[in-house]
Amino acid sequence: MTLEEAQELVSRGPFLNWLGLEVLELGADTIAVKAKWRPEWVANPVLGQTHGGILASLIDFAADFSLLNSIGHPVPTIDMRVDYHRLTKQCDLVAEGRVIKLGRQFSICEARIFDENRLLVASGRGAYITAPKAG
Amino acid sequence: MTLEEAQELVSRGPFLNWLGLEVLELGADTIAVKAKWRPEWVANPVLGQTHGGILASLIDFAADFSLLNSIGHPVPTIDMRVDYHRLTKQCDLVAEGRVIKLGRQFSICEARIFDENRLLVASGRGAYITAPKAG
Amino acid sequence: MTLEEAQELVSRGPFLNWLGLEVLELGADTIAVKAKWRPEWVANPVLGQTHGGILASLIDFAADFSLLNSIGHPVPTIDMRVDYHRLTKQCDLVAEGRVIKLGRQFSICEARIFDENRLLVASGRGAYITAPKAG
Amino acid sequence: MTLEEAQELVSRGPFLNWLGLEVLELGADTIAVKAKWRPEWVANPVLGQTHGGILASLIDFAADFSLLNSIGHPVPTIDMRVDYHRLTKQCDLVAEGRVIKLGRQFSICEARIFDENRLLVASGRGAYITAPKAG
Repeated sequence: MTLEEAQELVSRGPFLNWLGLEVLELGADTIAVKAKWRPEWVANPVLGQTHGGILASLIDFAADFSLLNSIGHPVPTIDMRVDYHRLTKQCDLVAEGRVIKLGRQFSICEARIFDENRLLVASGRGAYITAPKAG
Repeated sequence: MTLEEAQELVSRGPFLNWLGLEVLELGADTIAVKAKWRPEWVANPVLGQTHGGILASLIDFAADFSLLNSIGHPVPTIDMRVDYHRLTKQCDLVAEGRVIKLGRQFSICEARIFDENRLLVASGRGAYITAPKAG
Repeated sequence: MTLEEAQELVSRGPFLNWLGLEVLELGADTIAVKAKWRPEWVANPVLGQTHGGILASLIDFAADFSLLNSIGHPVPTIDMRVDYHRLTKQCDLVAEGRVIKLGRQFSICEARIFDENRLLVASGRGAYITAPKAG
Repeated sequence: MTLEEAQELVSRGPFLNWLGLEVLELGADTIAVKAKWRPEWVANPVLGQTHGGILASLIDFAADFSLLNSIGHPVPTIDMRVDYHRLTKQCDLVAEGRVIKLGRQFSICEARIFDENRLLVASGRGAYITAPKAG
């Protein structure tokens, strides 16, 4: 799959679009994307930090889409874990996903999120259904 | 804390506002909120399902805010697990949070999300910092 | 499945045997078992607390075996989360499992562990493969 | 901390002893250990596979002890996630732990388990209390 095809899959989705995602790199079992900050991401207006739900969304997205070149399309998430490492404020983010174990029924992938200074903001992993669709 | 005070804490946050959250109930160690569906929640436009990142955001929110009457304010999330049970499409959601174990340093809380037919859509749990702020 | 049949499934397993498991109750989607303390469970000999790996083993076991009456046999674990709530020392433990969502491909179950004073020691949840075996 | 000091910390613990742990390497924020197979590890006697609770124990241990050179001693686990990648049968295992994010209050570490053919058997991560003890 080319970068353009991956970007097309991303851009057709209203929520992914809202996250302002730009696919930077697509490897055999990796992906890197940039997410464009928007004011609605702010959790506490006094601190100005990006809400953990945004970070969780990026973890899920990047882990899932690291399977693109193995499976050919996004797949359903079974479950996900997210660890929060530091606050991030009003800046674009880079999310990097990687397949840990590709399986016939389900696969495990991980993702990391970096801020504009390349500091690790959050990381996590998820289980994804990679069984062929019944039918 | 009254329902109105809890709603105020919710409404001041740009992301929580964007999620259209209305606090329905606030107990000693529970919370119930309604989240108003919006078109930007859609993951795949063909399926029309709400993106898992939205569900993860609601799990994190409801688990965290179930601590309101114990701690008095929202607290930082250490980590979170989300399990996805079924797709949900274009409908408002109810998220219910509950404290599992209140601790002096950190606490564990869980949350469940229901669709308009009261079907369980997702559930999960998180660890939250409940130590007094250093200072 | 009767309590005796469940106990037989438990007792044939060397590790489950080593955990000293006695099935107390088996419901439609629940299970309760007692685990008999043994000196090898101790983590730090100064504190005398039971190692988290033992608690994780009990969580995985009880969550998995809560599916017995739905599936008819133990199933493979996809992944698991364990939360540790308090130390427990030199005492038997009770583990209770419950199905959260039974699915055709995979299912989510949770479990809680109590000490002899019925204090919650640990809790968690896991994803289990409940698809029929291929072939 | 020297390899010998780390091995001493491991060998004094009854459960870690039972797991037959030998410290192979200790880095600034990493650890590698070998665990010696024993018949009590077997889950299902027909399949002969090592029980997931043993793998979870090794994940928790290796993640925790990767903090040895940062903290100086083992620390309490807040929570843990384990992903199971493939069955492993009647063989010694190698567990490798690594600090993902060292924090003042808590830290996140990950671990991987390999079989004798260096195949990835399980992996996971946990949150650990690294705040100085009160008092």
